[in-house]
Amino acid sequence: MVAAELRPIGIDLLYPTPSTQQLQEAFKGRSLRDLPSPAAVIDRAILEVNCYQMLENCQALDISLRPHTKTHKLQVGETTKDVKFVVSTIAEIEGLRETLLNKKLQGKQINILYGLPLPPSACTRLASLAKELGPQTISVLIDHVDQLNESERFLQLSGQPLQVFLKIDTGYHRAGLDSNSQGFSNLLTYVSSLQKSGSVNLVGLYSHAGHSYGSNSNNEALEFLLTELEELKKAAHKAITILNEAFFPKLTLSVGATPTASSIKALLEDVPSSRSDSVSKLQRLVSRINQDFTLELHAGVYPILDMQQLATQAMPLTTSDVALTILTEVNSLYPHRSPPEALIAAGSLALGREPCKSYPGFGIVSDWGFPPSVTTQGKRKEMRSGWQVGRISQEHGILTRDPEAFELEDGWPLDLEVGQKVRIWPNHACIAGAMFGFYLVVDSRLEGREDEVIDVWVRWRGW
Amino acid sequence: MVAAELRPIGIDLLYPTPSTQQLQEAFKGRSLRDLPSPAAVIDRAILEVNCYQMLENCQALDISLRPHTKTHKLQVGETTKDVKFVVSTIAEIEGLRETLLNKKLQGKQINILYGLPLPPSACTRLASLAKELGPQTISVLIDHVDQLNESERFLQLSGQPLQVFLKIDTGYHRAGLDSNSQGFSNLLTYVSSLQKSGSVNLVGLYSHAGHSYGSNSNNEALEFLLTELEELKKAAHKAITILNEAFFPKLTLSVGATPTASSIKALLEDVPSSRSDSVSKLQRLVSRINQDFTLELHAGVYPILDMQQLATQAMPLTTSDVALTILTEVNSLYPHRSPPEALIAAGSLALGREPCKSYPGFGIVSDWGFPPSVTTQGKRKEMRSGWQVGRISQEHGILTRDPEAFELEDGWPLDLEVGQKVRIWPNHACIAGAMFGFYLVVDSRLEGREDEVIDVWVRWRGW
Repeated sequence: MVAAELRPIGIDLLYPTPSTQQLQEAFKGRSLRDLPSPAAVIDRAILEVNCYQMLENCQALDISLRPHTKTHKLQVGETTKDVKFVVSTIAEIEGLRETLLNKKLQGKQINILYGLPLPPSACTRLASLAKELGPQTISVLIDHVDQLNESERFLQLSGQPLQVFLKIDTGYHRAGLDSNSQGFSNLLTYVSSLQKSGSVNLVGLYSHAGHSYGSNSNNEALEFLLTELEELKKAAHKAITILNEAFFPKLTLSVGATPTASSIKALLEDVPSSRSDSVSKLQRLVSRINQDFTLELHAGVYPILDMQQLATQAMPLTTSDVALTILTEVNSLYPHRSPPEALIAAGSLALGREPCKSYPGFGIVSDWGFPPSVTTQGKRKEMRSGWQVGRISQEHGILTRDPEAFELEDGWPLDLEVGQKVRIWPNHACIAGAMFGFYLVVDSRLEGREDEVIDVWVRWRGW
Repeated sequence: MVAAELRPIGIDLLYPTPSTQQLQEAFKGRSLRDLPSPAAVIDRAILEVNCYQMLENCQALDISLRPHTKTHKLQVGETTKDVKFVVSTIAEIEGLRETLLNKKLQGKQINILYGLPLPPSACTRLASLAKELGPQTISVLIDHVDQLNESERFLQLSGQPLQVFLKIDTGYHRAGLDSNSQGFSNLLTYVSSLQKSGSVNLVGLYSHAGHSYGSNSNNEALEFLLTELEELKKAAHKAITILNEAFFPKLTLSVGATPTASSIKALLEDVPSSRSDSVSKLQRLVSRINQDFTLELHAGVYPILDMQQLATQAMPLTTSDVALTILTEVNSLYPHRSPPEALIAAGSLALGREPCKSYPGFGIVSDWGFPPSVTTQGKRKEMRSGWQVGRISQEHGILTRDPEAFELEDGWPLDLEVGQKVRIWPNHACIAGAMFGFYLVVDSRLEGREDEVIDVWVRWRGW
């Protein structure tokens, strides 16, 4: 018996979401300063700029974008002609089911990739979605022959072959096969036989450059992208050799991660000669790949960004580019500690417990509501409050000094008050957002109304 | 305008919970092996033994227990004559509202402590609950004079004085005041004046020994408890000196944390002479405190336990004492890596990203479904699978070798299969449980039915 057969109740009943209308009635028009906390706040002005930037990056390379919905769980096909994205849970597709059926009625091509190497138990749920959404709407990642054990069953249930991306490990070592390995050759041979029998359709190859989070400059991020492209191109040529070309249309090569995808911005700028080599190498490589294959870019956190993304310096970002803040309140002050500290009612559930390589804390208190006197040391000036989340437990956060902020002449400002609302830039937006049932939306372009909730976006959750 | 006035919709609409009845219909009677994953599984047999053990510990010291509901969000007043607990969010009280009103009708005394130093914006929500539940049902923690700014308003809204515990910092340095500080004296003087005016009622002193998670033996945990008791006793005598005794009944001293609370088990055992000093010192100290004050113990994770609690060795526990496992599935195998690894579809959202001082991973794969051949090295034998969660990201976990498990004669077992269900003991149960909307309940006492879901317990969430 397979999992989905035990799901007579859908994801909406397992993990019910609140009513958007009721939330809007309760929150729209209110100031963030008056709202219960912790709450997750998205600045729509920043989000839109970040999305536009990524589309511009892709246009500069003449490739398409496949957003990863795991972070925002929101933006699907609003601006593009097709609905193409990658998910990290089946629940995300089930949560989007109605939206997708509407898009289908509007004649849009739906193209969803379930982004984890396929667990066999997922077959029934995915087949049921594929049947509703139509042929070639749902594809899966495969990196082991046994994941294809259910492909015949998928065909029976959905009336269509399983759309397959093979996952290639280009250095991250989380999932995927080394394209030089015997395992990859064996998998290709097996896929070829299933393709002949009609239960599988090979769509392309997929890699994820998660290790590019280790980048410390635009050039380093570009180098990660170049390596990934070279590796995937090599794997694709091997696939063509082993499989009979006649079996499939142009293979799609899907590469990405937010740091490497962000690094493409260098194409749009005057780069110093020391970096122009990587840039022109990238353009040549992409144009060669585009002759034989369809290249696409996937990325997830780019619309939101966070302290981890700033730390990669893949493009010149500051905290003013981060769209998500966690709204919380100062519960207590400890001026007698040396140095002084404060307590907020936001801990690892509200902020996540993800590390950031640029500092040892769990979030930076933004300059929202602080006098504009504290800026960072070093090259890149940015506004900060002078406080960071230095220690964390389930529902408690301890505010400590932000060592990157300037010390004021008259000593460190203990300019916090009990009851003061603060907004925190989290280390990893995907994790910080995960515990919240909805986002409060503000728009910093609205002069004098920057703190007003203009919308509430409900997010789904669960598995 | 204060937060709660913006909550015309309650926590049930902000963070709706699934229907217990529908979940029971879907899951009861099914085997864990057939269910969608990740899922959070509680073994009721272990839970009951752990709860019974803690009650026995408290009886041995002749003190009462105040469970912390933040982890399980379940067990309230089932076995005790009064309903006494501590919460970490107001949402927990709101979620329990109906249960509590029923208990009130049954004549039970309700006694809930909101366990974070009071954020002023919480006043309205707490006052509304206090009004419904009755006098002296809800108390708060105070460690800064400004937290009492709303006490007059609380009195107006609820018709009763604010019940106050003062939070004392006995070494954890998360929240609370040093009892030697001028700040503590000032707070006592201020509380005294508010008590005279009728808006505040001092109930007791509270400390939390979070730093006792650093214990490495029963004796170390006992020492943490002794220090905490001494400190709180000193603070209480200072309080009596500053306040006029006539104003309040016997103060309650609330101490605890699962490691220190667990260490009391030593009282019930034959301890070696090297440790009998601490044990008899504890008995003398508690009996002295009980003369002047009402002593109570609070603890949270004790019914569930986890790898962090095992690592403290506050009492002799093994993995067979851990009641929570995260059920997940093997998505892929990477036998070509050196050493071999595997992929599960459970990452930091399903397992948490909490560290454990006894090993560098994020969870241990239990022996469930494995041949009984792999045991741990070292003094304490326990069954393990030989695998741990070595690396983690949002929805991915990488299984690596568990270095504490014996290597088999014929090399490390890569005895995993794609699609195999496994159960993982998490590092910190409170965080691992937090993303799940419900617990699947099994009972390992039911011979031949150990894997059968016998109940589903819905948990609430949000703030």
